[in-house]
Amino acid sequence: MAQLPGKAIIAQGGGPTAVINQSMVGAALECRKFSQITHVYGARHGVRGIVDEEFVDLSQATSHNLEEIGKTPGAALGSTRDKPDEAYCKKIFSIFKKYNIRYFFYIGGNDSSDTCRIVNSFAEQESYEIRCVHVPKTIDNDLVITDHCPGFGSAARYVALALAGANLDNQALPGVYIAVVMGRHAGFLTAASTAFRRFPDDGPHLVYIPERKFNEEEFLGSIDATMKKYGRCIVAVSEGVWSEIDAKGNHVPLISTLTGRSEKDAHGNIQLSGIGALGDLLSDLVKNKLKIKRVRADTFGYPQRCFLGCVSEIDYHEAREVGEKAVQYAVWHSVDGSVVIRRVGDYAVEYDMVKLEDVAAKTKVMPDEFIAPEANNITEAFRHYVAPLVGVSPTAVRLAAPMVPKM
Amino acid sequence: MAQLPGKAIIAQGGGPTAVINQSMVGAALECRKFSQITHVYGARHGVRGIVDEEFVDLSQATSHNLEEIGKTPGAALGSTRDKPDEAYCKKIFSIFKKYNIRYFFYIGGNDSSDTCRIVNSFAEQESYEIRCVHVPKTIDNDLVITDHCPGFGSAARYVALALAGANLDNQALPGVYIAVVMGRHAGFLTAASTAFRRFPDDGPHLVYIPERKFNEEEFLGSIDATMKKYGRCIVAVSEGVWSEIDAKGNHVPLISTLTGRSEKDAHGNIQLSGIGALGDLLSDLVKNKLKIKRVRADTFGYPQRCFLGCVSEIDYHEAREVGEKAVQYAVWHSVDGSVVIRRVGDYAVEYDMVKLEDVAAKTKVMPDEFIAPEANNITEAFRHYVAPLVGVSPTAVRLAAPMVPKM
Repeated sequence: MAQLPGKAIIAQGGGPTAVINQSMVGAALECRKFSQITHVYGARHGVRGIVDEEFVDLSQATSHNLEEIGKTPGAALGSTRDKPDEAYCKKIFSIFKKYNIRYFFYIGGNDSSDTCRIVNSFAEQESYEIRCVHVPKTIDNDLVITDHCPGFGSAARYVALALAGANLDNQALPGVYIAVVMGRHAGFLTAASTAFRRFPDDGPHLVYIPERKFNEEEFLGSIDATMKKYGRCIVAVSEGVWSEIDAKGNHVPLISTLTGRSEKDAHGNIQLSGIGALGDLLSDLVKNKLKIKRVRADTFGYPQRCFLGCVSEIDYHEAREVGEKAVQYAVWHSVDGSVVIRRVGDYAVEYDMVKLEDVAAKTKVMPDEFIAPEANNITEAFRHYVAPLVGVSPTAVRLAAPMVPKM
Repeated sequence: MAQLPGKAIIAQGGGPTAVINQSMVGAALECRKFSQITHVYGARHGVRGIVDEEFVDLSQATSHNLEEIGKTPGAALGSTRDKPDEAYCKKIFSIFKKYNIRYFFYIGGNDSSDTCRIVNSFAEQESYEIRCVHVPKTIDNDLVITDHCPGFGSAARYVALALAGANLDNQALPGVYIAVVMGRHAGFLTAASTAFRRFPDDGPHLVYIPERKFNEEEFLGSIDATMKKYGRCIVAVSEGVWSEIDAKGNHVPLISTLTGRSEKDAHGNIQLSGIGALGDLLSDLVKNKLKIKRVRADTFGYPQRCFLGCVSEIDYHEAREVGEKAVQYAVWHSVDGSVVIRRVGDYAVEYDMVKLEDVAAKTKVMPDEFIAPEANNITEAFRHYVAPLVGVSPTAVRLAAPMVPKM
C-alpha cells in the first residue's frame, strides 16, 4: 500500500460525456477515504488548469454535491483540447512537485493516457514518487485493450434512440433519411444506430463507417435498392467517412473531398462536428442522382454526448467504477497505468490495470467481424456486443390490425 | 346522444410527434365503447388512405397492442403531407358515404382542421349526418384558441434537454454554440430551449424567433457582448428566422436570403428541416466577423419530434385525453368541431370543443408578452407558461467547492 503522503489531482480531458463526472466523483470520493491523500484537487479545464494552477478543492465539496455531479452530464471540472507535448508535460510535472502531488488521475481518451505516460516518465527520471493513472473515457470507443470505454454506452444509446425514432417517423412519412453520426476514425457510434432495430424492415438499412472506403456508386445503388424493397430508406453515416487518400497516406474526410472545407482543430484534425455540410451534400447527391423527392439529412452533433437525461445504465455504473478502481490500484497496489474493462460474461465485467505505454496514443477501430462484407452494414456480432451497453429500448411497437377489404 | 349507427374513421396528418399515437388510441378505444359505432377504421397515411380506401380495422386490434402503440412515437397509422383542396375533400366525402362512415376524427394541425371543415360542409350540403372532429396535434404549438397543442410539450422537452446539455458541454469547453430549432412561423419550440436555465449565466443566452425580424448586426453584437461577459455564448435560432420581405409581403427565410436555396414542399413552403445550411452559415458569420475560433452549430432536425423515450408527462396524458374527448363530444353531444385545451389552474386544464371554422387554417404565434423587448430573448412569462409542459429536468448541478489558493 502506497503510504507516501501527498495530494491527489483529478482532471478531465477531451470531449465531455454523459458519465465522465461519474468517474471524477468515483475517484474523488475514493481518494477521500485514504489518510495518506491529504487533499483531493480538481484541475479546472484539464491539463490547462494544472499549468495555470487553477485547482478546486474537492476535499471540501459535500458528498451530496459530488453524488449529484455524478448524475450530471458535461465535465464539471471543465475540459480542454490541449494535447501536451514534452515541454508541456515537464511544466505539469514541475507543478506536481511544487504542490506535493503524489497521485494523478486523468480521465480522458488516448491523448490523456499519453499525457499520463509522459508525466510519469519525468517522475521516474527524477525519482519523484507519483502514481499516474489514466481513467478511460471516450464516446468514440476507440481505446485499445479495454472491451469498451465509459461514455460510449450513453452516446450509443442516444444514437440508437434517435434512429429508432427516425425509423418510426420514416414509416409514417416515407422517404430517404440520412443521419450523420460522430466518429472520425472509429465507426462504433454509427454502428450503434442499429441497436434497436427489431423488425426485418426496420432502419437504419445502411451503415457507413470510416473503417471502409466510401463508394458513391455503391451508396446510391444500395439506397435505390432499399427504396425499391421497402419504399423508404434510412442511412447512418459516420462523419469521418472517406473516399480518398492524400499524399501522406491519410484518409481525406468526404466532407473535404466534396467541399474543400478544411478548418482544423488544435490537434490538426479537420473539423467534422458542429457543421451540417456532409449531410446536406449526401442529401443533394441522392436527390439529384436518384430523383427521389423526399430526402432529409440530420447531423446529430453535440446532443450525442451531452443530451440531458440520456444515460445508459451500465455506462453510468461502470464510469463510476473505473474512477474508484483507479484510486484503488494507485493506493493499494502502487501501480501506474490505465484502467481497462474486461467483458467476462454475458453480461458481466471485471476491471484491470494495464501499462500506460500499452494504451497511450493508440487507437482501436471496429474489428472485421463487426462489419458486413458489403461494407454498408454491421453484423449481428456487433449488435450482440453493443446490446448491454446501450440498455433497454423504450416501448416501440407496431399496430397489429387487419386491413379492411376494399368495397 | 348520437344514435346513428355507422363506422368511425381515425386518421393522422402532418408531422408525427411523440404522442400523436396516444390521441389515436384514446379515440379508438373510446369509439369501441359505443354500440352505435359498428367499426373503428384507421386510415393509412391520413387523408391519402381515405381516398385510396386503405383502412386498417382498429376494432380488431387488441387493447394491449393499442395501449403499447400509445407509448410509441411516430404515427402508427402513417401520415401524409397532402393538403386536400375542395375536389380532394369531395372525394373523401364520397368514400365516407360508400363505407357508411358517420364519425371522422382527424388528428393534426391547422391543415387537418381545415380538411374537417370542408368535408363537414359537403355533408351538410347533402344532409348526410356525420360528425367531423379535429383532434389537435403539432409540435409548433401554433393552433389558435387552445392554450397549447399536444405534441408540443414533448418536442419542447427534447429542445430543453438538448440545450441544457449543450450548456453543460459549453461550460466545459467554452465557445459559441448555435442550435437551429424547428419552427417556420412560430417560435414556441425555440423559446422552449430556455426551459431548464437555472443559474443566471446558463444558456441559451440569446433566442431568435420568427416573430421578430432578424438583424445580423444585433446578432453579432449580442454574441460579442455575451462572450465578453461569460466567456461563452449559446444561441437558439428558429429555422424560420427572416430578415427580408418579398414582393408579396411574405417573410423570406434567412436560409434563402443567405443561400438562394429554395426547395419547396407540397404546400409551397421552402424546405427548412432536414438541412444544416442555416446553422453552418450563421457559424461562419460569427467566425469571420467576430474572429472567434471555437464556433459550433447544430441543426436539431427530426429527433425533436421523434426521439424515442423523450416524452413530457403532461403531454402524454393530454394527448390521450383529447383523443378520448373528441369521441365523447361527437357521441354524447353530437357536435362537430375542434378539441381545445384550456388552462384553468397552475397547473390544471379542462377540455372544450370549438367550431371548426374558428380553428381551421388559422395560425398562432408567440404573443408579445412572451418576447423580450430586445427581440433576442424570451420573458419569464413564457418560462412560466412552458414549465409544466416540458416537465421536470433531470439532475444537472454545479460543483460547489472552493478554489485552492495558488502557491
